[in-house]
Amino acid sequence: MISISPAASFRIILCRPSHPGNIGGVARAMKNMGLSQLSLVQPLCEINADAYARASGAGSVLDEAQIYTTLPDALSHCVDSFGFTSRRRERIARLYPLREAVTHAYEKAVHGPVAFVFGNETNGLTIEELSNCQSMVYIPANPEYASLNLAAAVQLLSYELYVAQSVIPTINYDVTASPPAQQQHLSHLMKSLENMLLESGYLDPNNPKQLMTRLQRFIHRARVEEEEVHLLTGIFETVRKKLARSVK
Amino acid sequence: MISISPAASFRIILCRPSHPGNIGGVARAMKNMGLSQLSLVQPLCEINADAYARASGAGSVLDEAQIYTTLPDALSHCVDSFGFTSRRRERIARLYPLREAVTHAYEKAVHGPVAFVFGNETNGLTIEELSNCQSMVYIPANPEYASLNLAAAVQLLSYELYVAQSVIPTINYDVTASPPAQQQHLSHLMKSLENMLLESGYLDPNNPKQLMTRLQRFIHRARVEEEEVHLLTGIFETVRKKLARSVK
Repeated sequence: MISISPAASFRIILCRPSHPGNIGGVARAMKNMGLSQLSLVQPLCEINADAYARASGAGSVLDEAQIYTTLPDALSHCVDSFGFTSRRRERIARLYPLREAVTHAYEKAVHGPVAFVFGNETNGLTIEELSNCQSMVYIPANPEYASLNLAAAVQLLSYELYVAQSVIPTINYDVTASPPAQQQHLSHLMKSLENMLLESGYLDPNNPKQLMTRLQRFIHRARVEEEEVHLLTGIFETVRKKLARSVK
Repeated sequence: MISISPAASFRIILCRPSHPGNIGGVARAMKNMGLSQLSLVQPLCEINADAYARASGAGSVLDEAQIYTTLPDALSHCVDSFGFTSRRRERIARLYPLREAVTHAYEKAVHGPVAFVFGNETNGLTIEELSNCQSMVYIPANPEYASLNLAAAVQLLSYELYVAQSVIPTINYDVTASPPAQQQHLSHLMKSLENMLLESGYLDPNNPKQLMTRLQRFIHRARVEEEEVHLLTGIFETVRKKLARSVK
């Protein structure tokens, strides 16, 4: 049995947070439940005195927060990623209720870091940001008022991760399976596929429709393994080069 | 089985709250999870504009909040009461972890209102206040930093009450409702892929190794949908034709 350290395995990513107080509240919620890795993508505010005031005894989480310019950068070394949404209409990826997502996250954490991604306070995650996540999560809530405060949402996730820690270690992790692909290799795979499709004429850059979104959704659901991501990327690049040469 | 309405059965009692923002955060956390009955005992602050700002869309909970001068008054019609504490040393009453307390609360709620009692932000519940409660509850948390924000603690309780209300269905949350691909279409897909690989030179017919086996394993695990199988087959056939033409 492999034991998971939540502090080492799980990271919280906030996309475009706009209120310092919320960032502080997130830090406190994390430390209350033993988490420490916080990343901000394109923050719209400073980590200022308000943030530290709300963080209370969790200032260390703010001190060590990482800043990124894009979500794919923040996700690059993660083996799985869960994007939070309260809008269930978008058919982008699998959608889990919180507690079930946490179970899956522990299974994946055997192989590497797992990210939980939260959107801006007003608008949540964009379609593009959700597309960068391998699964979507919703927090069961009052359908007439399901919009949770950002720090409250992180508190619920952190708590579920903390509680699951003592329950889940009885699960038999399948560590014999090949490890899942790192997110940066999946991004590279999608780029190779797109280039091949452009070269072949199948993808019209002036009228791309939903082609790449549909393919990305398929690739995320497919749970590509690290070995396979290299195999597939190799195929697409070989074919692309062959097509490119033949045009001349 | 008797069905319990959480909104009618459960009330949140805050003893001596001192920050309007926290009271607002509590109101929002409650409404997010379908609760509405909030009582304040000897509040040390007003329910002011800060409270309404943090309450966001849950101002109605603040409008209807009841004010009491003593905790026994606030508890008078309740059939059970749970006092929250992060200090587990006081052996005043039975002490339950949150999730277990919620189970007991639902059992009691058949008979009448059940109260959850939270203390002042700085000091928590006094010994006397805890003595007025029939049981004590703790929220499992990092032992090195177990002091949760008041609104965060109410959020966790409200969430546990909401989730316990119904068995949250775990099946059918896969909103990718498109049916799975028929096996014959998967076979066709594999054939198209093989033809493309042969045409591109990536697959050597005299030395195929395990290439097609590995790809088949991936495709089976990926749970390709019917729509996707046609999309992928179309891509491979387009590319194969393009490669074939270019050789001539």
